[in-house]
Amino acid sequence: MSTEDTTDAEARERLIDLAAEFYDQFAAGEIPRMELPTRTKSNIEYDPEKKVWVYGDRKSTRTANSVSGARKLLKASYTIDFLANQLDEDRSSTLRELYYLSESWNNEEAQFNSQDESNNLVEDLEIVTGATREDFHMRPEESGAKVMGPLLIREQTQRGDRDIHCQKDVGQGGYQIPNDTDTIEFLDNDAEFVMCVETGGMRDRLVENGFDDEYDCLVVHLGGQPARATRRLTKRLHDELDLPVVVFCDGDPWSYRIYGSVAYGSIKSAHLSEYLATPEAEYVGIRPQDIVDYDLPTDPLSDSDVNALESELDDPRFQTEFWEEQIELQLDIGKKAEQQALASRGLDFVTDTYLPERLDEMGVL
Amino acid sequence: MSTEDTTDAEARERLIDLAAEFYDQFAAGEIPRMELPTRTKSNIEYDPEKKVWVYGDRKSTRTANSVSGARKLLKASYTIDFLANQLDEDRSSTLRELYYLSESWNNEEAQFNSQDESNNLVEDLEIVTGATREDFHMRPEESGAKVMGPLLIREQTQRGDRDIHCQKDVGQGGYQIPNDTDTIEFLDNDAEFVMCVETGGMRDRLVENGFDDEYDCLVVHLGGQPARATRRLTKRLHDELDLPVVVFCDGDPWSYRIYGSVAYGSIKSAHLSEYLATPEAEYVGIRPQDIVDYDLPTDPLSDSDVNALESELDDPRFQTEFWEEQIELQLDIGKKAEQQALASRGLDFVTDTYLPERLDEMGVL
Repeated sequence: MSTEDTTDAEARERLIDLAAEFYDQFAAGEIPRMELPTRTKSNIEYDPEKKVWVYGDRKSTRTANSVSGARKLLKASYTIDFLANQLDEDRSSTLRELYYLSESWNNEEAQFNSQDESNNLVEDLEIVTGATREDFHMRPEESGAKVMGPLLIREQTQRGDRDIHCQKDVGQGGYQIPNDTDTIEFLDNDAEFVMCVETGGMRDRLVENGFDDEYDCLVVHLGGQPARATRRLTKRLHDELDLPVVVFCDGDPWSYRIYGSVAYGSIKSAHLSEYLATPEAEYVGIRPQDIVDYDLPTDPLSDSDVNALESELDDPRFQTEFWEEQIELQLDIGKKAEQQALASRGLDFVTDTYLPERLDEMGVL
Repeated sequence: MSTEDTTDAEARERLIDLAAEFYDQFAAGEIPRMELPTRTKSNIEYDPEKKVWVYGDRKSTRTANSVSGARKLLKASYTIDFLANQLDEDRSSTLRELYYLSESWNNEEAQFNSQDESNNLVEDLEIVTGATREDFHMRPEESGAKVMGPLLIREQTQRGDRDIHCQKDVGQGGYQIPNDTDTIEFLDNDAEFVMCVETGGMRDRLVENGFDDEYDCLVVHLGGQPARATRRLTKRLHDELDLPVVVFCDGDPWSYRIYGSVAYGSIKSAHLSEYLATPEAEYVGIRPQDIVDYDLPTDPLSDSDVNALESELDDPRFQTEFWEEQIELQLDIGKKAEQQALASRGLDFVTDTYLPERLDEMGVL
C-alpha cells in the first residue's frame, strides 16, 4: 500500500468505488460482501522486500447473508457517505465524533452501538481502500507528541504555512506534532540522528542537558504508546532525511512494545506498517543488560510482566538474537527498571555517560 | 502565600532556614519537629479575602520522637541539601529523578522507599517554606498542555528568549506550555476570554472551526486532569490580562473535578490554591441540564459515578446553587454525556450554536 501521495479526491474515489461494488453485487443478484485479511498475531508475516510485518493470506469475509452481516455493510455504506462528504468539504472529524454523529443518521440500524464498532469499521475501510484514516480526514483523539532539535519545517496549517525551527522558534516544550504529519515539509536540518524517548521526564532531562544541541539529535517525545502521527513523522525523518532512528524507553515488556510499535508496527494496524513503521529503528535501552551493568534501582517483575515477556518471546517480530537474549536475561533476573532510574548515578549520567557509550557501541555516534 | 516573586536565592534560603531550625532544636535539647496543616477534606475552608479554599487550623506534627519520625526528618534534611545544591547550580529535576537519586545518598536510612514518599515530602517542604515545587526547580513528569489564540508571549528558555504568537507562529498543534510557566511574559493580546477544554478531540474541533479566531478566545487544552503548569498559566491569564475564564468539560463527576481543580484547587495542594486556582472560572458545560435540553447521546451513570456525585454534594467547594441543582438533576436522570456527544447535532453545532448560546447566557460574549 502506498498512501503517501493519496489525494483527497483519490481517497474519496476509492470509498465510492467500494460502495459501487456493493451496488454491482446487488445488481448481479449476488450477496454483497467485503473481504479482509484476518487481523491476528498468527496471520502476520515478514515482508522481506518492504522490510515490515504485514498481514498474511488468511482472509475473513463480511457478508450480508445474515442480519448482523447486512447491518455491518449498511453501517459501512453510511460511513462511506459521511467520509465522502467530509472530503468534499475539506473538513475533518475525530473517531469519537463519527460514533456520535451516527446518532443523527436517518436509519437507526446504521447507527453505531459502541465506539469500538466505528473504530473497527474505519480500519476495515483503510484496508479495503488502501488509504489511511488520515486520508479520510479522521483525526485521533490525541495528537502527536513533540520534537526538539536542529530541524526547520514548514507546516501547512488551515491558516497558511508556518516555518518553524524546532530549536530556535519554539519554547522549552518544543514543537507540537500536529495530527496529520503529512502537512509537514522538511526544509533544512543539521541532524545526525533521531532519538524517540518514552517518558516526558527523560525528554525534559535530555533537553535541559542540551543533548539535542550537543549531539545534533532530534529528540522525539513518544509519551507512552506513540500516536500514529508521531510514528509517521519518525518514519519520514528516517526515510526522507536518511537519519538513523533509535528508541529510548523504560526497561520492561510494555516499553519493548512501544519500541515494537515504532519499529515493526502493530498487529491491529499491520495494513499500515509500510506507512508507519521504521524497521531500521534500533533499541538503545533500558536493556536488561543495563540493569546488570549499571546496577540500576529496580522493581520486581509482576506476573503480568512475566506473561508479557513470554508472549514477546513467542512473537515473530521479537525473534531476533538481541531480543531473545535480553528477554531471557530479564526473566532470569526477575527485575525491571525505568529510564529515570539512571538518575541514581546523578542527573548527568544519562547524557554524559550512558547514551554516548550506548550510541557509540551501536555505531550511531 | 505569595510565591510569584520567589527567587532561586530566596527559595534556597527558606530551605536552609528549615534545616537550621532542626539544628537549633537539637542544640536547645529539644526533639526536632516540623508542623504542618492536616491535609484532609475536613480541614479545608474558604478564605473570603483570597477567594480560594485553604487549609484550616488543624495541624499535624512530624517529630523525631520515634524512629519513623526521625527518619522522616533525616530524609527532609537530605532533600533540602539536594534542592539547595540544585538551586545553586541552576539545574532542575523531576520528582521521579529525586526518588531515584536518593539511592546515591550515603545514608541508606535517608533513601526513599517509594515515590509517594518523596512526592509527599516535597509537598511538605512547599507548605513549610511557603515556596512552590517550581521554586525548588522540581519539574513534573508531564508538562502542560497547549494554547491556541490571539496572544503574543515571550518565553525565557535556557537557550534565550523566544517571542511566540500563539496563532501565527505555531502549527495546528498550538503552543506547548512549558513546565514552568513563570518563564512566560505576556507581551500583547487581542483576547476576550479564556476557554479551558478537557479533551483533545474537542480542542481540535474548536481550532478546526476557527473558534479561537472568530471569538478572540484563548483555547487552553487541559488534557484531562490539568498539570500544574496549565492551571498556573490559566490563573495568570485571568489575573494579569483581566480575562474571564470558562471551563468546558464532559458532563460527568470526574469532569466536574477537573473544573474544580482549575477553579478551587485540590485538597492535596490547598497550600497552593492562591497560586494555582482561578476562583472566578465558570463552568460552561456539559451540564446535566444540557443533556436534557439538547437530548444528547448518553451513557448510564455507573456506581462509582453516583458515589462521586454524592461525594461532590458533600464537598464544601461544590455547595453552590448551580452545582447542587445540576448534580441533583444528574442523579435524577441517571445519565452522563461527553463533550463530543454534541457531534450528534452535526460537527458545527458546538461552535455555531451551543457555545455562543451558553457564553451569551453566562455574560461572557
